[in-house]
Amino acid sequence: MAVSYIHCVQYSWKVSSRGRVSVSSSVYGGNHLKNRSACVVFASNNKIDKVETLLDSVKWDDKGLAVAIAQNVDTGAILMQGFVNRDAVAKTISSRKATFYSRSRSTLWTKGETSMNFINIHDIFIDCDRDSIIYLGKPDGPTCHTGAETCYYTRVSDLLEPPETETQGDKLAETTLYSLESTISQRKAELELPQNGKPSWTKRLLLNSDLLCSKVREEADELCRTLEENEDKSRTASEMADVLYHAMVLLALKDVKMEDVLQVLRKRFSQSGIEEKKIRVSQG
Amino acid sequence: MAVSYIHCVQYSWKVSSRGRVSVSSSVYGGNHLKNRSACVVFASNNKIDKVETLLDSVKWDDKGLAVAIAQNVDTGAILMQGFVNRDAVAKTISSRKATFYSRSRSTLWTKGETSMNFINIHDIFIDCDRDSIIYLGKPDGPTCHTGAETCYYTRVSDLLEPPETETQGDKLAETTLYSLESTISQRKAELELPQNGKPSWTKRLLLNSDLLCSKVREEADELCRTLEENEDKSRTASEMADVLYHAMVLLALKDVKMEDVLQVLRKRFSQSGIEEKKIRVSQG
Repeated sequence: MAVSYIHCVQYSWKVSSRGRVSVSSSVYGGNHLKNRSACVVFASNNKIDKVETLLDSVKWDDKGLAVAIAQNVDTGAILMQGFVNRDAVAKTISSRKATFYSRSRSTLWTKGETSMNFINIHDIFIDCDRDSIIYLGKPDGPTCHTGAETCYYTRVSDLLEPPETETQGDKLAETTLYSLESTISQRKAELELPQNGKPSWTKRLLLNSDLLCSKVREEADELCRTLEENEDKSRTASEMADVLYHAMVLLALKDVKMEDVLQVLRKRFSQSGIEEKKIRVSQG
Repeated sequence: MAVSYIHCVQYSWKVSSRGRVSVSSSVYGGNHLKNRSACVVFASNNKIDKVETLLDSVKWDDKGLAVAIAQNVDTGAILMQGFVNRDAVAKTISSRKATFYSRSRSTLWTKGETSMNFINIHDIFIDCDRDSIIYLGKPDGPTCHTGAETCYYTRVSDLLEPPETETQGDKLAETTLYSLESTISQRKAELELPQNGKPSWTKRLLLNSDLLCSKVREEADELCRTLEENEDKSRTASEMADVLYHAMVLLALKDVKMEDVLQVLRKRFSQSGIEEKKIRVSQG
C-alpha cells in the first residue's frame, strides 16, 4: 500500500526525489513552503505518514464518516454520492478506484467490485470545512446499480408534475452542454418516426450535411470576426454558442459524444501540456 | 408558500389546468400515467400535498437529514455540499434559493442570506436511494465563504506533495473543459511577465490574432471534412477537440468565459427550444 498510493493522482501524486513530508499543521495555509528545508529524504514510511496526517485533518462526523461525491472528470456529471471513513479514503488513494463505506453493511465497498464499472480516480479534492470530498474520476461504465449512467435520474419536478409522455421520463441531472447534447440526440432519434409538419432546425441540419457543414464553417468565421472587428464580448459569446451548437449536431451525426472529445483534450493535456504538444506538431 | 413553489423549477414546476396530484405510490415507476383519470382539479392545497408526498419519499437518516449537493447548472462545478431536512427542501422549492440545514446551529440557512451570493435553483434531482439530492442552480457569485468560486479548492495531492511554487496552490476542482480554460488563462497572464525561451503554442496564438483566426477557421473546416469525407469517429473527436481548444483561446483573448457561452445556450433553450428559435431566425 505504501508503494501504490503515491501514484494515485496523475502527475502530482508521485513522491519527489527529495521525498518531502511536510504536510503537518500547515495544510490549511500556505506556510508549508517555509518548511521545505526541514524535508526528510527516503519516504516509504513517510508516505504513509503523509496520508495519515491528511486523514487526521478531515473532520469526521460522530460516526467517523465524511461525504464523498464521485464526479465524471470529463463531463462534470455527478455520478453518485456515498460516505467514507478513513479506510475508504486510504483505499481510494492506494487503489485509484473510488471506495466508500457502506453504512447499512458496515463495510468498505469499491464501486465496481461487482459490476466492474469502477470509477478510476484522477484527482481528489476536499472542501473548506474538511468534511466533504470530491472523487474526480472516469467511470468504466454506468455508475448506478439500475444501469443508469448516474444515480441522479429522478427529477423532482417530474414527481410533482408527471411528464406528458413516457419518453419524457427519467431525465438525468444534466448541465447545459449535456442537456443540449441530449436534445440533439432526441431529435436524431425522432427522425426514425413518421414526421409531422415542418422539421425543426436541428432536424434540417441532421438531414442535410451540406447545410450543416456550411453552417459550421460560417459560424466559425463569424466567431473569428468578433475578434478581427473588435465586436463586444456578448457577440463573441453568442457566436461561440452557435459554433458549439452546430458542431454538436455534426458530432451527433457522426455518433461522437462530447465526452469523447473532452477525453481527447484531457489526454493531450496529460502528456506534456497541450501547447507543448502543439508546438512539437507545428514544428514538425 | 403554496403559491410560490409551483414555479420553482423552470417550465415543469407549474401546476397544470387539470391540477393533477397523482404522485402517490407511483413515484418510483411509470404507473402515474394510469392514474391521470383520477386527477383532481383546484390544487392550492394539492400542491402542498404533492410536496409533502415527495418529502415523505425521501429516506431521511436517523437525524432527519439527507445530503444536498449544489452544482452549477452551466459548468457542472460542484459548488458546495450541505445537509437538508424536510423544511430545507420545502423552502428551496418555494424560494428557488438553495437552502440547507446547519447541523452545528440547528437552523435552516439559505446560501447567500448573508453574502447575497444565492444559488438560484433551476432543477432538483434525487438519487436512486432517495437520500441524496442535487440542487442544479446558477450562483450569483462565489459560493465559498472564503470568496472562492466553490468550496473545493484543496487538492489532496497538493497536501501530500506541496506544489513547487505559490502560484500552483489552491487549484479548484475542475473538470476537463474548465481545466483547459484555466490553463489558457494562466498562459495569458504569463504574457505580462518577462518571457524566457520560445513561447508555447497557446502563447503564440494569444499574441497573433491572424494566426489564431486562421487556425479556428482551419479546424472548423477539418471538422466538417470528417463528415464530408466519411472519416472515422476518432478523427471527428480529435478535430472537434482542436476546434474547442482554438476557439477557447479566442474566448480568452476576448475575456469571455465558457460559462457565459453556456448561459447563452441555456437561455436559447429555455425560450422555446433552440431549434424553434433557430427556425424562426432562418425564416426571417
